[in-house]
Amino acid sequence: MADQYAGTDPGGQPPAPPVLRWEEPPEGPVVVLLDQTRLPAEEVGLVCTDVPALVRAIQTLAVRGAPLLGIAGAYGVALAAARGYDVDDAAAQLAGARPTAVNLGYGVRRALAAHRAAAEQGAAPAQAAEAALSEARRLHREDAEASTAMAARGLGLLDELLPGGSHRVLTHCNTGALVSGGAGTAFAVALAAHRAGRLRRLWVDETRPLLQGARLTAYEAARNGLAYTLLTDNAAGSLFAAGEVDAVLVGADRIAADGSVANKVGTYPLAVLAKYHHVPFVVVAPVTTIDPGTPDGASIEIEQRPGSEVTQLTAQGFAGVAGTAPGAATAVAPLGTQAYNPAFDITPPELVTAIVTEAGVLSPVTAGGIEELCARSRQVTIS
Amino acid sequence: MADQYAGTDPGGQPPAPPVLRWEEPPEGPVVVLLDQTRLPAEEVGLVCTDVPALVRAIQTLAVRGAPLLGIAGAYGVALAAARGYDVDDAAAQLAGARPTAVNLGYGVRRALAAHRAAAEQGAAPAQAAEAALSEARRLHREDAEASTAMAARGLGLLDELLPGGSHRVLTHCNTGALVSGGAGTAFAVALAAHRAGRLRRLWVDETRPLLQGARLTAYEAARNGLAYTLLTDNAAGSLFAAGEVDAVLVGADRIAADGSVANKVGTYPLAVLAKYHHVPFVVVAPVTTIDPGTPDGASIEIEQRPGSEVTQLTAQGFAGVAGTAPGAATAVAPLGTQAYNPAFDITPPELVTAIVTEAGVLSPVTAGGIEELCARSRQVTIS
Repeated sequence: MADQYAGTDPGGQPPAPPVLRWEEPPEGPVVVLLDQTRLPAEEVGLVCTDVPALVRAIQTLAVRGAPLLGIAGAYGVALAAARGYDVDDAAAQLAGARPTAVNLGYGVRRALAAHRAAAEQGAAPAQAAEAALSEARRLHREDAEASTAMAARGLGLLDELLPGGSHRVLTHCNTGALVSGGAGTAFAVALAAHRAGRLRRLWVDETRPLLQGARLTAYEAARNGLAYTLLTDNAAGSLFAAGEVDAVLVGADRIAADGSVANKVGTYPLAVLAKYHHVPFVVVAPVTTIDPGTPDGASIEIEQRPGSEVTQLTAQGFAGVAGTAPGAATAVAPLGTQAYNPAFDITPPELVTAIVTEAGVLSPVTAGGIEELCARSRQVTIS
Repeated sequence: MADQYAGTDPGGQPPAPPVLRWEEPPEGPVVVLLDQTRLPAEEVGLVCTDVPALVRAIQTLAVRGAPLLGIAGAYGVALAAARGYDVDDAAAQLAGARPTAVNLGYGVRRALAAHRAAAEQGAAPAQAAEAALSEARRLHREDAEASTAMAARGLGLLDELLPGGSHRVLTHCNTGALVSGGAGTAFAVALAAHRAGRLRRLWVDETRPLLQGARLTAYEAARNGLAYTLLTDNAAGSLFAAGEVDAVLVGADRIAADGSVANKVGTYPLAVLAKYHHVPFVVVAPVTTIDPGTPDGASIEIEQRPGSEVTQLTAQGFAGVAGTAPGAATAVAPLGTQAYNPAFDITPPELVTAIVTEAGVLSPVTAGGIEELCARSRQVTIS
């Protein structure tokens, strides 16, 4: 019978494994991550039994993406508490694991605050740990809800900006279910357009040096049955020139008070191209990505990653390379070559058509608008 | 004695092997190429005994770069003639091996014309073959001289545009001795600036998908002792934003009659970034790169290369990958992923500050100026 296959996705693939989960085996609680460095070749769970393991996973990008880093940070605090480690020390280690994504520190602080509040009210260590875990779970749920809201608002904006209804969207890096408790940020909008029958094509930048576009966004696009095409980052220019891009959708790792957006390196050149070609450039990010404490783009600390990510191919980030042991590296540039390898770049607000958050769409992007959005979001949280 | 090492370069490396040479072993004449797909890991000569082998070398980019393709095409015609193959057929195969670089067809036509002229004057086949070879050698020499002239004119232009005298130059793809009978095009200008003590830094785009920047430009920069730094193509935006780029120097594969420039994919986004940041964008190319028969950018045929160059890592282009046999490919994107992989893009004349040729510097770039430059160059050739 034909309908015996109802419920399987078009590719007949098994459901995607969860990106991050809390488990409590007899040996003690653990955080299990889908190791993103090994996608798309392998879907492997990475079991973190302590905070240093989770910090390593964050630093090697086994777990990555601004919203998910926040969730991971919160569960990390819960893990330290549940296993009886020094919670303040764990929180400091986690918050400092990577500098640019503001969500990481936010998630850590929320779980830490819940733990402290419980302890101050006289809770036993196990109860305080439970409070931290509850807070991590709450953040996880909120993030999923934020994804849903961003997807709806983002699709509404696309339909408004592009009345034709057949959108060709360019995206950079990976912003789907792999970075979030839900369907993600920018990718969630493209997915909503696809499900509404209004996505003609998703152009996927490969996103050097670690190929999050080729490895992860293409994986998510394929899993969800989107019409997608991969390209080298430098080929985006030709697409704009040929009129093949209707809108750019990207995520964000930190948004400053003036509306400057830090996102994966290569975002800024896309914003300049979009401006030159009069194509909407849309940032999709939860309100937690906004950092009112960072006044402007110049104040955002940009993580500089090892030059070897550029000068060498390593198994990390290229898990499919046959014959290379994990961590094995082979040079593509001459020995001794120095590389400039910032993980992020800054797009100033004047190049951003709109910022889509779960609390509303901001366009044009101004400091006043950012402030208002944050205020509105706090009201929503309080109510 | 200290001076026993006089004559070796600063790195103590042996001299670079010739990029292309004609040899006449007892078994018959051959064209020997430095296999550029295996650099920088290995310096291996690729011996072409017939035209199909040379065509394959052109298509796999073992030999590449607009001026060198012209030289290779001319020697290819000479090879067919010397070995007694059908010369017209060989010329057609060679000229059609890759579509975008105009120099390839130009070199083929020059050697073919010399062969025909000799044959029409009653030369024996061996003498006609000798005439084709002489023409190939002449083109080779002329290209070396053009490099020298472009380097001098280009450095003069840099000094004029940037009176400070400490240039930070960004370049894309590979345009040095590996693409030319001499020191190259854009790279030759950077090298002249270095030798004059006026190059502060060469920023080298890695140039995806085949990494000609990482593999070849870094190799040439290291060999020549330049201060250089490698970056992913998408990191150039941050450098512009930080004011770290004083000028962009690139080569060209074809320049249309209106001044539109076809060059390695990724050139156009750099031109847009340069315009946005008020940074000079300079194209360095011999006059043979100008094609008066192509009216504008839209008329330039852009080679579309296999998507597998983007979706897979292959030994070709990544010769250093341990454990991969030549030609072995490993996927980085999910199976079935389509890729958009144009080899070149088009930069319109309004984004080009100047075109530097051996016959003169054109700035601003206009159709009238292009015509005048071609006329002047013909006079130089005739005189």
